[in-house]
Amino acid sequence: MGIISNVLGIVAEYNPFHNGHVYQLQQAKQQAKADLTIIVMSGNWVQRGEPALLDKWQRTKLALSGGADLVVELPFQFAVEPAHLFAQGAVQLLSMLGCNRLAFGAEHPELDFEALVANQPTDASSHFKRFDETYPTLFNDYLQAQTGLNLRASNDILGFSYVAANQRLAQPLKMIPIQRRGSAHQDTGIERGTTIASGAAIRKAVKAGEWTVINQMVPADTARALRKEQLISWTDYWPYLRYQLLVSSLADLHDIYQMSEGIEYRLKQAALVSATFEDFLWAAKTKRFTYARLQRLCVYILLQVNRVALPTELRYARVLGFNSAGQQHLNRVKKASKLPLISRVTDDWINGPFRLDYQAGLMRQMLSGVDQDRLQHAVIESS
Amino acid sequence: MGIISNVLGIVAEYNPFHNGHVYQLQQAKQQAKADLTIIVMSGNWVQRGEPALLDKWQRTKLALSGGADLVVELPFQFAVEPAHLFAQGAVQLLSMLGCNRLAFGAEHPELDFEALVANQPTDASSHFKRFDETYPTLFNDYLQAQTGLNLRASNDILGFSYVAANQRLAQPLKMIPIQRRGSAHQDTGIERGTTIASGAAIRKAVKAGEWTVINQMVPADTARALRKEQLISWTDYWPYLRYQLLVSSLADLHDIYQMSEGIEYRLKQAALVSATFEDFLWAAKTKRFTYARLQRLCVYILLQVNRVALPTELRYARVLGFNSAGQQHLNRVKKASKLPLISRVTDDWINGPFRLDYQAGLMRQMLSGVDQDRLQHAVIESS
Repeated sequence: MGIISNVLGIVAEYNPFHNGHVYQLQQAKQQAKADLTIIVMSGNWVQRGEPALLDKWQRTKLALSGGADLVVELPFQFAVEPAHLFAQGAVQLLSMLGCNRLAFGAEHPELDFEALVANQPTDASSHFKRFDETYPTLFNDYLQAQTGLNLRASNDILGFSYVAANQRLAQPLKMIPIQRRGSAHQDTGIERGTTIASGAAIRKAVKAGEWTVINQMVPADTARALRKEQLISWTDYWPYLRYQLLVSSLADLHDIYQMSEGIEYRLKQAALVSATFEDFLWAAKTKRFTYARLQRLCVYILLQVNRVALPTELRYARVLGFNSAGQQHLNRVKKASKLPLISRVTDDWINGPFRLDYQAGLMRQMLSGVDQDRLQHAVIESS
Repeated sequence: MGIISNVLGIVAEYNPFHNGHVYQLQQAKQQAKADLTIIVMSGNWVQRGEPALLDKWQRTKLALSGGADLVVELPFQFAVEPAHLFAQGAVQLLSMLGCNRLAFGAEHPELDFEALVANQPTDASSHFKRFDETYPTLFNDYLQAQTGLNLRASNDILGFSYVAANQRLAQPLKMIPIQRRGSAHQDTGIERGTTIASGAAIRKAVKAGEWTVINQMVPADTARALRKEQLISWTDYWPYLRYQLLVSSLADLHDIYQMSEGIEYRLKQAALVSATFEDFLWAAKTKRFTYARLQRLCVYILLQVNRVALPTELRYARVLGFNSAGQQHLNRVKKASKLPLISRVTDDWINGPFRLDYQAGLMRQMLSGVDQDRLQHAVIESS
């Protein structure tokens, strides 16, 4: 094989892997003239504070058969965080894995993301002290006042965050915004005649068992996995979250990561009176908390993530799967980079830096009975 | 009404209230020439570390219709403890409620309990440091060596503990041992033709749905409650216990009350591989831990009872129910005793001394949806 010059990175959740992702992969590879494509993927919990429908191994298989060469897990410390921290971890990881291109889907790829980043407030705290709006709303208002541009669509916001994180790298990657097709990220409607819908719309169809719709919107492998495998949602975790909220003292709840503004009182009250997770969110919601922020808080409570600040530096890369090209690249990374590559999770990792990722997987294993880390080997895709 | 001179106390769990209890109440009242009978009853968790099948309010109703005049809850801090602490709290409570008689069922009421108490080792720790036997076994071996008497039957052991606790009172009560009828406490067999069986045997019949047996062994009111009400067992709590064991760090588990000898490692391992509570107990069991001790430890984990020593003094009496004679007696106690009598649980109590009892009830409410403390009023039996 020749010299690898264009290594493309994509940040993804694949919850689940659908036709829009297939299209994005194809477009990205073409525009980046990619010799190799690396996916940094959320594990068993996604950025908006929800369990992934399919586990990280099932989603890795789908990503590899959909065109990825290498899939690496975005550690929990970044995966379940607001966009700027999520992007920071993901971009750093792609960079350390030897990527020099980063493609991302955006509602408005024509936006001048660099200009937006240059205009972001240097001291965020002084601008966002209003308590009647969520942070994303205030942030967008600010940018609009500064640049006249609107940054409300969720993939535009993520794109902005990737660009901002990229600018902080010693060797920034070439950024490739790609026009998203189909409905918006959180839009749950399905358009007639299309084969592309948002993840949210597909998850809604899965919940409703609308298999005609699903079959139309996802590759056959994904449809098969969605039928065969145990799918997990907050509904499955709700009894455990509720129990933890009821049994924990207010002092212990206060010590949970990101618990702020005394919301622990509200959460405890809401847990007592709510029958379902949806009821609970509705009862707990305030104007200052987005649903995503509330849901992330719920993940921290369920996993008992303590207020002790999460490490912000990247300490390892957990390899989820690869094909032969991906494996050859991994060997090069091993030689060139100091980043530990985890392909087998030992007790030292579980009781050390990997603990939180292990816990995140253990919560899934508790429900599904399927080991997530201790016994799992990287998925090898034969091409 | 005349002067009340014989106030009888009985310590009970009524899990559930059965014909043996009816017989014991009748015998005790007769032998004590009781003017009034007070029951100190475990709440929603019993001494062996199990949830009561019926909740404390349902059991209070049955006790009142079965002949009790007043039912008071034994606080959790005593109710879920080994026999000597259980007895200490219960006897102290009966004494503070103005009892001067205490009746208890025993397998061998003819035993000289006073002599046994007099012969108990003064320094227990020096005698019981063998790690190949449980404490009860070592204790019995010791007593047998000292007195030639055998103290293996569980109600004899409780009787011994009542007598020991009684001797520590400034004004000891008159003790009235009553011959237990039917099978032994933990014997789960049912004898043909009898109408009395042990609580364990009846719970087993309930689990198996053997209604012919149950109807024969319990009063009609109990049978009705067992059919109508939600019955709770460890099977219902097992998912939550398992989750708590999996999510808690070893350090946090180590801080649980009565966690000792490094058993937290075993419990965590056992939780991962066990599908049912029975599997779990079997996997976690060691020679040094009785099943009762293990089960109590499970309650402490489920309720997150911290190692911070539980208060050993009695701080309140929670009134569960009464008839008019019981109510008149309560009024006398209010005037004569400094012990706070709780009939309504306020936030001050919940966030203060009553917290653990509240938590114990909240865990039941979580499953049944039936409030246990905040909204409940004492049961009033019209006679």
